[in-house]
Amino acid sequence: MGAVIVDLTVSLDGFIAGADDGLESPLGRGGEPLFAWMTSGPRDPDDPRLSVVGPSRPIVDEWRSRAGAILSGRRTFDIARGWAGGHPIDAPIFVLTHAAPTSGEWSPRVRFATDGFDAALADAREAAGDGVISLCGADLAQQALRAGVLDEIQVSVVPLLLGSGVRLLDGIGPITLEQTRVIPSDGVTHLRYRVLR
Amino acid sequence: MGAVIVDLTVSLDGFIAGADDGLESPLGRGGEPLFAWMTSGPRDPDDPRLSVVGPSRPIVDEWRSRAGAILSGRRTFDIARGWAGGHPIDAPIFVLTHAAPTSGEWSPRVRFATDGFDAALADAREAAGDGVISLCGADLAQQALRAGVLDEIQVSVVPLLLGSGVRLLDGIGPITLEQTRVIPSDGVTHLRYRVLR
Repeated sequence: MGAVIVDLTVSLDGFIAGADDGLESPLGRGGEPLFAWMTSGPRDPDDPRLSVVGPSRPIVDEWRSRAGAILSGRRTFDIARGWAGGHPIDAPIFVLTHAAPTSGEWSPRVRFATDGFDAALADAREAAGDGVISLCGADLAQQALRAGVLDEIQVSVVPLLLGSGVRLLDGIGPITLEQTRVIPSDGVTHLRYRVLR
Repeated sequence: MGAVIVDLTVSLDGFIAGADDGLESPLGRGGEPLFAWMTSGPRDPDDPRLSVVGPSRPIVDEWRSRAGAILSGRRTFDIARGWAGGHPIDAPIFVLTHAAPTSGEWSPRVRFATDGFDAALADAREAAGDGVISLCGADLAQQALRAGVLDEIQVSVVPLLLGSGVRLLDGIGPITLEQTRVIPSDGVTHLRYRVLR
């Protein structure tokens, strides 16, 4: 069974987006530098949205090659405009929502999961096979931590303080982790942990 | 003039102590593992309170050798019981407080600073000479960041989620940092940043 992981970029003070994130400002106020490490190198011939060089490159390659399914919140789906232009990972994307949208455009890989977190995770596990189930969003990460089903946390910490916005980790603990990998890179550090139960 | 730095150990979710920290529980609920990296090796002959080995050792040596003065909050002074048993750093300790205590015991290196943050920092700078002024406490770090006088941030990130407690960085930003050093170690990662203004 594939591991359930959250793998997101955070500011040093723990935000995955600044304040007032939304359609107009996907990374919120001051949040643009969060993704600078993914676009700082020469254009990636495989995916023109990415340009990752140096020690960060294997991180992105691993993210793409290991993912068996993505589980996303509805808000992330909306802000990402349904990945209508494509998602960097070629895997089914389960969007947890109370009700599927009745109009609009989205990636053909999107499937709406309307029966709650547990059912969505079960569907994602089935689709993923031995691949990783990647949780995309702070709410989902927190739900998985609370439910005791999160296996790993990877944070790419960027040199930025946001002060407010969307916190990745909030109000859950004490939980002991095991530090399993540290990859220092240019303008970012990739920290990986196993969640111990 | 010496740099003003904050150099503290934090959980992955950004807490320097768990909830309900105080005299009985200096590191708060669940916070004991925060300092495990400082006491995991064989006893240090120079200071029996420390036993740091591996890549973390130079971090502690640098902390001790570069410090010219410590600026602490009153709450930290109280919880540390005035460092009556000695402080690992042999430097003057300025304790910012509204009123100096009239009884009790504390380290002979302690001086009480009762004229506010700016005056306390000026006194600490004078005492430090070319040495580093080390801010000891989240409140002080935040005050220094807000005032634009913090030069560097070093966080030793330990594999732990606390969920609540005393946050090191809270409500201040956007501020751009420069990642200047990453030292992965055993059960801790030492991240160092310069504050850009």
